[in-house]
Amino acid sequence: MRCENPVMNQILDAYRPMWSLKHAISLMGWDFETYMPREGTEERGVADSQLHMLHKDLLLNKDFIGLVESAKKLENLSDLENGIVRVLDREITKQIKIPKVLTEAESLERIRGNMAWREARKKSAFKMYEPHLKKMVDIKKQIAEKIGYEKHPYDALLDTFEEELTVDDLDRVFGALTPRIQNILKKLVDSGSPFCKESKLGKSRYDIQKVDELNHDILTLMQYDMKRFRMDVSTHPFTETMGLNDVRITTRYEGTDFKKSIFSTIHEAGHALYNLQCDQSLSVTPLEGGSSLALHESQSRFWENIVGRSLPFVQLIAPLIRKQVSFANQATADELYLYFNNVKADYIRVDADEVTYNLHIAIRYEIEKKIFGDELSVSEIPEFWNDRMEQLLGVRPTKDSQGVLQDTHWSSGLFGYFPTYTLGNLVSAIIASKMRKDLEGYEENIKKGNFKPIRKWLRSKIHQHGSVYAPKVLLNNTFNEGYNPDYFVTYIETKYLGF
Amino acid sequence: MRCENPVMNQILDAYRPMWSLKHAISLMGWDFETYMPREGTEERGVADSQLHMLHKDLLLNKDFIGLVESAKKLENLSDLENGIVRVLDREITKQIKIPKVLTEAESLERIRGNMAWREARKKSAFKMYEPHLKKMVDIKKQIAEKIGYEKHPYDALLDTFEEELTVDDLDRVFGALTPRIQNILKKLVDSGSPFCKESKLGKSRYDIQKVDELNHDILTLMQYDMKRFRMDVSTHPFTETMGLNDVRITTRYEGTDFKKSIFSTIHEAGHALYNLQCDQSLSVTPLEGGSSLALHESQSRFWENIVGRSLPFVQLIAPLIRKQVSFANQATADELYLYFNNVKADYIRVDADEVTYNLHIAIRYEIEKKIFGDELSVSEIPEFWNDRMEQLLGVRPTKDSQGVLQDTHWSSGLFGYFPTYTLGNLVSAIIASKMRKDLEGYEENIKKGNFKPIRKWLRSKIHQHGSVYAPKVLLNNTFNEGYNPDYFVTYIETKYLGF
Repeated sequence: MRCENPVMNQILDAYRPMWSLKHAISLMGWDFETYMPREGTEERGVADSQLHMLHKDLLLNKDFIGLVESAKKLENLSDLENGIVRVLDREITKQIKIPKVLTEAESLERIRGNMAWREARKKSAFKMYEPHLKKMVDIKKQIAEKIGYEKHPYDALLDTFEEELTVDDLDRVFGALTPRIQNILKKLVDSGSPFCKESKLGKSRYDIQKVDELNHDILTLMQYDMKRFRMDVSTHPFTETMGLNDVRITTRYEGTDFKKSIFSTIHEAGHALYNLQCDQSLSVTPLEGGSSLALHESQSRFWENIVGRSLPFVQLIAPLIRKQVSFANQATADELYLYFNNVKADYIRVDADEVTYNLHIAIRYEIEKKIFGDELSVSEIPEFWNDRMEQLLGVRPTKDSQGVLQDTHWSSGLFGYFPTYTLGNLVSAIIASKMRKDLEGYEENIKKGNFKPIRKWLRSKIHQHGSVYAPKVLLNNTFNEGYNPDYFVTYIETKYLGF
Repeated sequence: MRCENPVMNQILDAYRPMWSLKHAISLMGWDFETYMPREGTEERGVADSQLHMLHKDLLLNKDFIGLVESAKKLENLSDLENGIVRVLDREITKQIKIPKVLTEAESLERIRGNMAWREARKKSAFKMYEPHLKKMVDIKKQIAEKIGYEKHPYDALLDTFEEELTVDDLDRVFGALTPRIQNILKKLVDSGSPFCKESKLGKSRYDIQKVDELNHDILTLMQYDMKRFRMDVSTHPFTETMGLNDVRITTRYEGTDFKKSIFSTIHEAGHALYNLQCDQSLSVTPLEGGSSLALHESQSRFWENIVGRSLPFVQLIAPLIRKQVSFANQATADELYLYFNNVKADYIRVDADEVTYNLHIAIRYEIEKKIFGDELSVSEIPEFWNDRMEQLLGVRPTKDSQGVLQDTHWSSGLFGYFPTYTLGNLVSAIIASKMRKDLEGYEENIKKGNFKPIRKWLRSKIHQHGSVYAPKVLLNNTFNEGYNPDYFVTYIETKYLGF
């Protein structure tokens, strides 16, 4: 990309080595989870940390900061140029404010804490992991103070993951969302809804190669261009973007519950599409990613849940499933639909259905807020967790691995990340509602496998902009909305109570 | 690794980011040839050149050069410390001497020339590629002048690939080798040797998945540890080392001539073993690679030809082949042995057998020497090539794709690289001769699949040292030899005339 303003072009040129380091770091991350021989771990760790340090050196280079500072004073910048300045200024500010000693302490604790967490989860013993969690929380509290905040220390951390997100926003969101979801869940259970009946599907062992073919068939149906995209296998599915023309996802094959594999694939492919449909002029600039984690999650959840778990989509892929999954070779679209949308209040977040999922997030949000607001100590977390699970979902974990130890996030220092999952769900419903008004024959097109109108709509409204706009600005400009939970609640009510 | 001397430790610390950049560049190279989606090419090109520039900046940083200069003045350095200084000093000197404008011109011409060469090879039209080859030769002549040399401009380029290798060395080598090989070839053809009879094997289509299993079976037999090693597929097989604990090879499946796939695998695995058996204390230092290209090639050729194409090895793997290759399910070990060792004077170097291979290299060496000695112009190459093919091998290419256009090296600026292939062959024979004297039951162990004694011998004599010693020093210290062709000639005579 070339800009009108010479300072902006200098910034873009100086950014190329930083982009390249990120490119390499992304590839190393992808490779670590997919193909790297196991004993390469230590060497990869050295390379990863060294490349991060090189990146930081370039970002905090005086001349580069000087360029960004001059650009901040320029007038009449285009949206695009403003976006570049905004994104880089945010990154510089965060990196400058956090002293090296804290960054290093966090890096170290991330490795140690993560190892301790793995061990503790295996043994279902929170006590083993507790001292590490205390240490990490302590580091994060210091980081929050260094970054600074207006009202709540947790705001400093939230903003790291979702630009300008605050406790006030989230209190509003969960205050409105949680009781309404609880209410829907109660109605479903009390009425003996077909969604609550356990399916017989997904109980036998499937042929991994065939389900892999099935996933590829679905991606082909969804028009993914394998010249710019690929899919591999990893324990935890993820999307990694090397650049706008090299976006990769992974999926998982745990062996029986094949919906997990299919919907991991569609979920990650949704993330990938955000990058694949970004305007090519943003390539090798700071704007080539998505606007935020919540916006990214809105894309993955839109495709996974709102499209992927809809009846027309299930009708579309049912023949492919019957072909590749031997024990489902007689399954009707309706049976598959109920299997894919089974609702069950249960312990594990990653396996949760659309209805209960955000209740899991609500608990994590409450805990994080209380910890950073000094209202809850680390040692009190397990009991608080279990109490809230009982209150919100009606099930009480009997061991730590079912409860507080299930997620990796905290051990990696990711405090403030969980809420973006719920925001993503809310935004996916906003998108779906707006889209249905704009696109005639929305459902018929899905049933026919014609995804072009949806892709085009998403490209023009969201994808093409990359991170030119901050998430709140994008939502406001495009949809005249914020993180409004009403659309999501209506979507869930219509789908689950109206069936 | 930690040294006695604080300056050496400063050097090692400063080297870590350079090592990390190389690690990332290697991974990007591996990925480019194996899994990268096709349209990621341009972005990968940006990242690759930016990371190279970052590496050059770090290497030529004044403080770093200052450290290496101080280290050069230190006395009582260990072999290891001397090795570090030698390797870094060589790299710095080369990079400093070549002006940026030449490096950039070469980079650019490498891409353009390579594209032109591909096109020209397809159309078998040297004229299309000639202007690019002229340009590259011109750039390389300038580079040779900048690097400097004592006797012959070509020496400057040879030294880039093989430390201290000169035209004098190679004139001695080929002067002794070429006529003796021609003589052996003549005897084989004239006597109607069974090695010269075309085999029926390798003419039908094989099942790629089964030959892939076969390759993995062979690697298992050869005790490759998949925790530090892996094998993938690419058009042209190669070995890439991310670090001492992450070494990767690729192989190829062209579909019919299955020996190509097997011996590519064993060849690359031989390269890999050099790195896998390097002393772990050299990890993340400038010494973790092999001593030189020729030494590396000696390892790949030792395993591919001297072990892999020997009768005991063929007897060992024959049952695996009969199991996986349907049209060879009745083949005896002797039939396989003759198929693997078929001798034929033909046009293409990469498909050449052990006997004729070095004649192909001799021609390339003569041409390169004459070009940089201003005794031959670029436009005269095709005819010279064909004449020499006729004289040395008795076959005259009738089109450029069979002749001058077959190799990619020149289009990528690799002048001085070819001779290391022959040196590798010579050294592999030196190694085999010395090893047989040291190891009792050498052949019986191969037949039994007991490769431990060979691996141990190679580790102690060569592998463990990484690039602590320059190749000539290593050969002299360990074997009291140079690039002596006698061992190779004796090996070929014994194997092919004594059967």
